Amino acid sequence: MAAVLMLRGCAGLLYKHRKGYAASIAPVCSRAMASKTPVGFIGLGNMGNPMAKNLIKHGYPVIAYDVFPEACKEFQDSGAQVMDSPADVAERADRIITMLPSSPNAVEVYTGASGILKKVKKGSLLIDSSTIDPAISKELAKAVEKMGAVFMDAPVSGGVGAARGGNLTFMVGGVEQEFDAAKELLTCMGSNVIYCGEVGTGQAAKICNNMLLAISMIGTAEAMNLGIRLGLDPKLLAKILNMSSGRCWSSDTYNPVPGVMEGVPSANNYQGGFGTTLMAKDLGLAQISATNTKTPVPLGSLAHQIYRMMCAKGYALKDFSAVFQFLREEENL
Amino acid sequence: MAAVLMLRGCAGLLYKHRKGYAASIAPVCSRAMASKTPVGFIGLGNMGNPMAKNLIKHGYPVIAYDVFPEACKEFQDSGAQVMDSPADVAERADRIITMLPSSPNAVEVYTGASGILKKVKKGSLLIDSSTIDPAISKELAKAVEKMGAVFMDAPVSGGVGAARGGNLTFMVGGVEQEFDAAKELLTCMGSNVIYCGEVGTGQAAKICNNMLLAISMIGTAEAMNLGIRLGLDPKLLAKILNMSSGRCWSSDTYNPVPGVMEGVPSANNYQGGFGTTLMAKDLGLAQISATNTKTPVPLGSLAHQIYRMMCAKGYALKDFSAVFQFLREEENL
Amino acid sequence: MAAVLMLRGCAGLLYKHRKGYAASIAPVCSRAMASKTPVGFIGLGNMGNPMAKNLIKHGYPVIAYDVFPEACKEFQDSGAQVMDSPADVAERADRIITMLPSSPNAVEVYTGASGILKKVKKGSLLIDSSTIDPAISKELAKAVEKMGAVFMDAPVSGGVGAARGGNLTFMVGGVEQEFDAAKELLTCMGSNVIYCGEVGTGQAAKICNNMLLAISMIGTAEAMNLGIRLGLDPKLLAKILNMSSGRCWSSDTYNPVPGVMEGVPSANNYQGGFGTTLMAKDLGLAQISATNTKTPVPLGSLAHQIYRMMCAKGYALKDFSAVFQFLREEENL
Amino acid sequence: MAAVLMLRGCAGLLYKHRKGYAASIAPVCSRAMASKTPVGFIGLGNMGNPMAKNLIKHGYPVIAYDVFPEACKEFQDSGAQVMDSPADVAERADRIITMLPSSPNAVEVYTGASGILKKVKKGSLLIDSSTIDPAISKELAKAVEKMGAVFMDAPVSGGVGAARGGNLTFMVGGVEQEFDAAKELLTCMGSNVIYCGEVGTGQAAKICNNMLLAISMIGTAEAMNLGIRLGLDPKLLAKILNMSSGRCWSSDTYNPVPGVMEGVPSANNYQGGFGTTLMAKDLGLAQISATNTKTPVPLGSLAHQIYRMMCAKGYALKDFSAVFQFLREEENL
Repeated sequence: MAAVLMLRGCAGLLYKHRKGYAASIAPVCSRAMASKTPVGFIGLGNMGNPMAKNLIKHGYPVIAYDVFPEACKEFQDSGAQVMDSPADVAERADRIITMLPSSPNAVEVYTGASGILKKVKKGSLLIDSSTIDPAISKELAKAVEKMGAVFMDAPVSGGVGAARGGNLTFMVGGVEQEFDAAKELLTCMGSNVIYCGEVGTGQAAKICNNMLLAISMIGTAEAMNLGIRLGLDPKLLAKILNMSSGRCWSSDTYNPVPGVMEGVPSANNYQGGFGTTLMAKDLGLAQISATNTKTPVPLGSLAHQIYRMMCAKGYALKDFSAVFQFLREEENL
Repeated sequence: MAAVLMLRGCAGLLYKHRKGYAASIAPVCSRAMASKTPVGFIGLGNMGNPMAKNLIKHGYPVIAYDVFPEACKEFQDSGAQVMDSPADVAERADRIITMLPSSPNAVEVYTGASGILKKVKKGSLLIDSSTIDPAISKELAKAVEKMGAVFMDAPVSGGVGAARGGNLTFMVGGVEQEFDAAKELLTCMGSNVIYCGEVGTGQAAKICNNMLLAISMIGTAEAMNLGIRLGLDPKLLAKILNMSSGRCWSSDTYNPVPGVMEGVPSANNYQGGFGTTLMAKDLGLAQISATNTKTPVPLGSLAHQIYRMMCAKGYALKDFSAVFQFLREEENL
Repeated sequence: MAAVLMLRGCAGLLYKHRKGYAASIAPVCSRAMASKTPVGFIGLGNMGNPMAKNLIKHGYPVIAYDVFPEACKEFQDSGAQVMDSPADVAERADRIITMLPSSPNAVEVYTGASGILKKVKKGSLLIDSSTIDPAISKELAKAVEKMGAVFMDAPVSGGVGAARGGNLTFMVGGVEQEFDAAKELLTCMGSNVIYCGEVGTGQAAKICNNMLLAISMIGTAEAMNLGIRLGLDPKLLAKILNMSSGRCWSSDTYNPVPGVMEGVPSANNYQGGFGTTLMAKDLGLAQISATNTKTPVPLGSLAHQIYRMMCAKGYALKDFSAVFQFLREEENL
Repeated sequence: MAAVLMLRGCAGLLYKHRKGYAASIAPVCSRAMASKTPVGFIGLGNMGNPMAKNLIKHGYPVIAYDVFPEACKEFQDSGAQVMDSPADVAERADRIITMLPSSPNAVEVYTGASGILKKVKKGSLLIDSSTIDPAISKELAKAVEKMGAVFMDAPVSGGVGAARGGNLTFMVGGVEQEFDAAKELLTCMGSNVIYCGEVGTGQAAKICNNMLLAISMIGTAEAMNLGIRLGLDPKLLAKILNMSSGRCWSSDTYNPVPGVMEGVPSANNYQGGFGTTLMAKDLGLAQISATNTKTPVPLGSLAHQIYRMMCAKGYALKDFSAVFQFLREEENL
């Protein structure tokens, strides 16, 4: 089984991983159920659309909503029922999955004038798969709880390709006794469903992983670039790092230097993969969480700044491993 | 075969590694030779002493020197011949290994008033296993070449334990046709001998690895600390990182959080291992190399500063994974 | 007139400034008014207490509230009327000043269950002098506007001493035609009242100043420390910097090196002044604002991390110039 | 008298300074001397050429050398005597000034095969005005001393314009009793001659100033950019900073935001002024000095990296205040 990428928005590429892991945490069983009640799905974007379709494929009637009419239209054509508001979804389904681009969107969909909470039924299970500030997840959970319903955060790893293939990883936070109910739905869309702890810890796990990923990716780019300038052959240097204590996923599975590996964005002009702007967004969430908890994250903070500068320098839509290209450019007097 | 640690000065601990690598780069053959001419060895410190003894064990007569008389005395007692100066060693041996603490020491031993070059024989092979600035290695090589001799840089990975056990890794830079001659000696002291390219690339490989190691160690400490403050269980978080894209040697083999792994310095109050002051030294070399080649290394540079601050805050002799402890301390009003 | 410190929480010290500035931006006229209607004041802490007393001194009846009963008691003894909730204050006063420690407190006082907005009168003027996230100021402004009232942000510079002496500086954001009405009250408590632009710009000005202050303070500490280690006399180095392009408020008015200047915290073991924990808080706000506006602030971000680490290392209550002490400590093997 | 810029290579612009300082440290007296013996001058580049000409203007016969024949030719035409090597200069002049681009050049000119030391006369005074690593200055001083001569380091502040006008500032390190002899020559070329202490402290003073300058310039750029994005008018924000604790030379004399000040590089598309590549060089020297003395300089280190990245992104020849432009660019998806 492949290492979990923790990347959103990958443009359909599936990178091969060199090492295997026994992903024993959440064994996935594909269960057939006699009768399936409708499931709500709010947010039909690049990720939400294929996720919702996988629910349908598994036999769940889906009641959907998206703020963009075109997204709804396309979805309706594929047989689902589309509502006029999150509240209307909540009226008809007692299990709802939300997949939204940012914290303010999530707040609006749950607590807005025509939000889920306006018509949520007691006992409903609301699962938010957006990647947002864990503090917001906790606030949403409180608001949901007041209405007698249950909230879980379940952000995903894996991009559009994994969403289509049903190979996402879900990191789930919330009350443990509700985890099985959530897993029943999430396993239709993902191959790993990991219980992380109380509400917000799903977000926390994702944010921490992506912060470490950004740091080790930039570190790999710096070390490779320095080595090359000091006269080392890039392939040989990668080999040495990968058999040594500098080894990391960015060096051995997703090396940022063109010519070192095949089938990774660096071999394809940094197209596809996980966009720099998405990495900058996740680092921003890490930064806000660190600030709020007074946690020093000096390298995470600088990584955030570097990806922010890259976005401003034309790298926004390139894969985040393009930091090698960003750093390697030479002074040209 | 174990991943190469690239650490000096480990206090004899041998950490187990979770993943195997086929270290095919430099197969080690233990060859018996009919007659062995003397080998010079300069620098009989914590590392040099056991290294030189391994040469003796392999049947090489050793002609030694150290600036500290006690170091010489101890060594003489074990049967070796001790000289009064590097020049005197060079007069008697045409293969010399040097193992010195810093660039200025190396410069003195080679080019000083009673240095090797005063009496070096034509055709001699001089191997420097010190960890120093690659630019200095290149300068020494030029000076050596002028005397008609050959210079190679061959810094080591692995600490005192590996030096004793003959399990060091050598990264070797220099003229390729001399590599076999160097390997003959180095395999007596190490289990991996990797040819890296022209003079200075041995140093470069080591410096680049240790810079990436420092970055990913601090990154791991930051990510673990942030996750813990956000409510995640440290063992679970490590598990998630290690099956995800945040995975690195510092997270899966040498985790800095007490209680996550056994047999690593974090399980032993950060004793043993690779001292923070040694890591700060190597990061200083990386910094100087980056400055001289105008290579941007923003995270490497900040990692250097962090280890420098740690040294000043009482962490100098603790293992470098103690950065977790340094970062985790909480504001206490 | 003295340079504006932009510091809260100074323990009553008044530092002398070497250079004069014509503070022409907001000339202060002390006007006598025939009849004065009551003014509400919420938040009677170290800063709020003397500020509210200055309003009383200028003849304004004050209707006050604080969440801590002791703070109310002390204030009541000095002749003011104390209410049970922000809502009750809003019922009796149509001009209210709030002075609260953080964003969540401000949100609660305005929009909470017994918050100002529950009973605010149409046309009321609500001035928030707390230092908070400008995005929160904007949200509060919107909520206030919906009730037909006016909101302005007016964070202060100058510590407890300036609050007592009525010498604070206010940076004011909000609708320009309401500025005169705000100034009437603020001039009772401060000697500079600066109009900065639309709602949130008062906070923005303060945050930007303090971020630059933190950066140049750390920079001064680094430069002084490096110079001293390179053999320069600290007083001479300060003199050279101050006649050169390195000159800044931290070098010429508030030098962090003991022995260079008199009457500053560095001359008094870093007691008094502007606490490191307060600087860390303001840098956190700058960080959040930068993240939200996707603005790269690499040095601001690192300054934040450094003050955060200092807080964890026992410097929380020392003046922020103690960063010199934090950096100067030497490795002690 | 103007604040000292500590900038080399300014393209002839003379920026006006807002505040006056009594530069009492080194009063300049222009003295007429009965007879003047020849002075050597090595390094006739953009700076050295006008400096040497000012010596001639003050009546000193100049004996010169430059590695580039064209530079010698141009100088010969203006009446000076040109030699074939530094050694030949040393044979004819017992006072020599050197003005060279980098440490290796200085080492070569002093200790090379046809260097000054080959023919230096006992008692000669050798003044190096290059900006180089203070550790190299110390080494040169030792080598010079061995020959019975005297070495002083005297790097300059002020660019080509100041070199032409004789308005440079010299920061001088070396034996104090030789300072008057050095000052006699330096006052022909500069209006400030500051004695800093033992050999190397001239370099140290310059490096420390420029490091603090870089830090506060980037800090000013960050604060101005953040403020603008938060809705503040740049001129108003500069005004507020300059009357507050964020004030620094970069904000009040050399503001990096176009439209805020006249007569500075930011008003002229960042042309002229002090080039980014020169600032990067000086920060590299600061970094090396800090590494060698184990001094933590986190912001200085990051400033170095930022200017290094700017050089690679096309800013090498723009004024160093262009960091504002570098940071302000917006993400453009």
